[in-house]
Amino acid sequence: MTDISPLAPESFPDIPSIPGVQMAAGACGVRYSGKLDVLLVKLAEGTEVAGVFTKSQTAAAPIDWCKQSLSNGKARALVVNSGNANAFNGVAGIASVERTANQASEVVSCASEDVFIASTGVIGEALPDNKITDALSGLSENLGTDWQAAGDAICTTDTYAKGAFRKVKIGETEVTIGGIAKGSGMIAPDMATMLAFVFTDAAIPQSVLQPLLSKSADKSFNSITVDSDTSTSDTVLLFATGQAEHQAIVSAVDAPLQDFKVALDEVMLDLAQQVVRDGEGATKFVEIKVSGAADDKAARTIGLAIANSPLVKTAIAGEDANWGRIVMAVGKSGEKADRDKMGISIGGVEIAATGQAVEGYDEAPVADHMKGQEIDIAVDVGIGQGEATVWTCDLTHGYITINADYRT
Amino acid sequence: MTDISPLAPESFPDIPSIPGVQMAAGACGVRYSGKLDVLLVKLAEGTEVAGVFTKSQTAAAPIDWCKQSLSNGKARALVVNSGNANAFNGVAGIASVERTANQASEVVSCASEDVFIASTGVIGEALPDNKITDALSGLSENLGTDWQAAGDAICTTDTYAKGAFRKVKIGETEVTIGGIAKGSGMIAPDMATMLAFVFTDAAIPQSVLQPLLSKSADKSFNSITVDSDTSTSDTVLLFATGQAEHQAIVSAVDAPLQDFKVALDEVMLDLAQQVVRDGEGATKFVEIKVSGAADDKAARTIGLAIANSPLVKTAIAGEDANWGRIVMAVGKSGEKADRDKMGISIGGVEIAATGQAVEGYDEAPVADHMKGQEIDIAVDVGIGQGEATVWTCDLTHGYITINADYRT
Repeated sequence: MTDISPLAPESFPDIPSIPGVQMAAGACGVRYSGKLDVLLVKLAEGTEVAGVFTKSQTAAAPIDWCKQSLSNGKARALVVNSGNANAFNGVAGIASVERTANQASEVVSCASEDVFIASTGVIGEALPDNKITDALSGLSENLGTDWQAAGDAICTTDTYAKGAFRKVKIGETEVTIGGIAKGSGMIAPDMATMLAFVFTDAAIPQSVLQPLLSKSADKSFNSITVDSDTSTSDTVLLFATGQAEHQAIVSAVDAPLQDFKVALDEVMLDLAQQVVRDGEGATKFVEIKVSGAADDKAARTIGLAIANSPLVKTAIAGEDANWGRIVMAVGKSGEKADRDKMGISIGGVEIAATGQAVEGYDEAPVADHMKGQEIDIAVDVGIGQGEATVWTCDLTHGYITINADYRT
Repeated sequence: MTDISPLAPESFPDIPSIPGVQMAAGACGVRYSGKLDVLLVKLAEGTEVAGVFTKSQTAAAPIDWCKQSLSNGKARALVVNSGNANAFNGVAGIASVERTANQASEVVSCASEDVFIASTGVIGEALPDNKITDALSGLSENLGTDWQAAGDAICTTDTYAKGAFRKVKIGETEVTIGGIAKGSGMIAPDMATMLAFVFTDAAIPQSVLQPLLSKSADKSFNSITVDSDTSTSDTVLLFATGQAEHQAIVSAVDAPLQDFKVALDEVMLDLAQQVVRDGEGATKFVEIKVSGAADDKAARTIGLAIANSPLVKTAIAGEDANWGRIVMAVGKSGEKADRDKMGISIGGVEIAATGQAVEGYDEAPVADHMKGQEIDIAVDVGIGQGEATVWTCDLTHGYITINADYRT
């Protein structure tokens, strides 16, 4: 593991235990010896689950499995390994998933279709699933609430474990939402990004949980990018153990659920932003607010075009407020923009308006802002009312160094 | 100018003079003093012209002008400057173009709508067009056939001037096709890329010239990428002076035109590949052949997804045959692919087939191939008969270095 990202949070959060959620992490040598690389989470009977997955046409075998398992909306176990994505392994990959699910179903005493599986790491190498299945029995005897170990076990090129939680009330009953995520490179979500697992003791049926998660993912994991590359393994799963005793929830618009939705969005966004802050080689965290687009979807597309532009990202790395490259990126997004009404602000200073540079704008505060670690860009494209915010990081020599010799 | 790209051709080609085409390049200090930065080309009366332009929503002012000028299909002059793209300059940018066109029309004695204008360089800074207009009269008195100076005058971050030519017969009459291009970064064409100007003494009406150019651009400039960023100034213009005396051409399917079409495609592809070979920071030239796609357009989309993937490009820079990243890029392209039928070859060695690694394939020749400067990748996605070839370069520390301090 390389040095911890300069954008990392100060420490891993003190996620409380969540009734119905027990976990254990182990080092079984999937790829590196001694690194925590397998996670078993045992979930209480009655746990409901929602998921969003990569739209990749070359999705990994565990994605197919999870989509299938999701159809009955119940979950009893989650097994995650890092070091090997079990992607592009053909029939052998599918068999690996089945063996893992079968072994997990034995150690937690449930049906194998209630087991969820995720793998992250190198693509196209056979998964030594025997190392994982051999470890599961031991893990099941050591279940606890070590969230940080769980976060560590799912990391690959990540430089720190990512966790977040909120406590919130449903009616008079306090519930907890806690989760972990991993991701650093190959981050340009399409439906979801990399791996994130969020747990709550709230009692929410799958029919409500799924739309909550999908909507929340759009505003968080689907609004971040590190390098425009979409993983074959992107998975976000939300488990609700139902251990909290609050009034019954039957619809996403139920009044008692409103605070929960806000808290869920906060946990999801917190985790998503932690992924960006661990972007490979990142030295700056960039927030891009787009307004004036044809609609919100168009705004997000424009935001991601800016966030994915290598020229914008290298300019930020060079602490250069090169807004001409932002204009270029807006133009290539394919969405409508009125060149002659566009405006751009960096660090709160308006530097372009009505399609041209603001004459005599003060470059000094902008230059200072560019030297910081948190960069704010706002773009109005002069068409309509569509708005979106996306997050990314800069593109540095560190990214090249990490990725020119990851596999070898 | 940095060191010449290691992928550059040995020398600038010896482009012959083309009847009806005269040119002069000058150093007028648009951005840097002493660098050739303005080009005037005078075209014989009766010259027909075809063009393809960037689809950017924030296209530069000269693009609007050229599209307008193209409507009558005639051309008498071309003025190109480097150092400033005259993009995102609002009304002032439009006025700059008009003043330049008016002055050019005076010095070559033609209507201003028969003048074509292109600008390349920094975005969002006012164009000092007086430097250009002041220079035009002197240039018009020194017209000649110095193609290399013309090629130099349109360069920005390019490390070498790009030219190509072919001689070919239409019926019994020999004609010449010669052209120049510029481009190094911000290369991900959409309709056309950066600047390329191709000239011929053939007599071909605009109604035939335009479809020839559009089709040729699809297979050349629209099939290359350096960094996925689409310029605001992309322009390809094809001028036919009509000085050659061959049988009349009335349709693109005329038999005497078939060799000309092949030669035009060759010149266009030669220029396009020279742009890739001058990709910012490039150390390897990469050809990606995609087969088995739903159709040819899908194949090109898949090819460009591979060619634009930072993870694929950094792996190539690291001389790592990391084909898992190719699988990932195919998956994110959005086009159909059958994961379990896909095959991948690198340097002619099949390393993945039917959706998994070829057991025991010989890594040694692949590793040798990756150490070379010319990398061949072939991917079959197992769906249909669609095929395409695209070209790109690797992503290196050089790209970061160049782009983290271009403007400042």
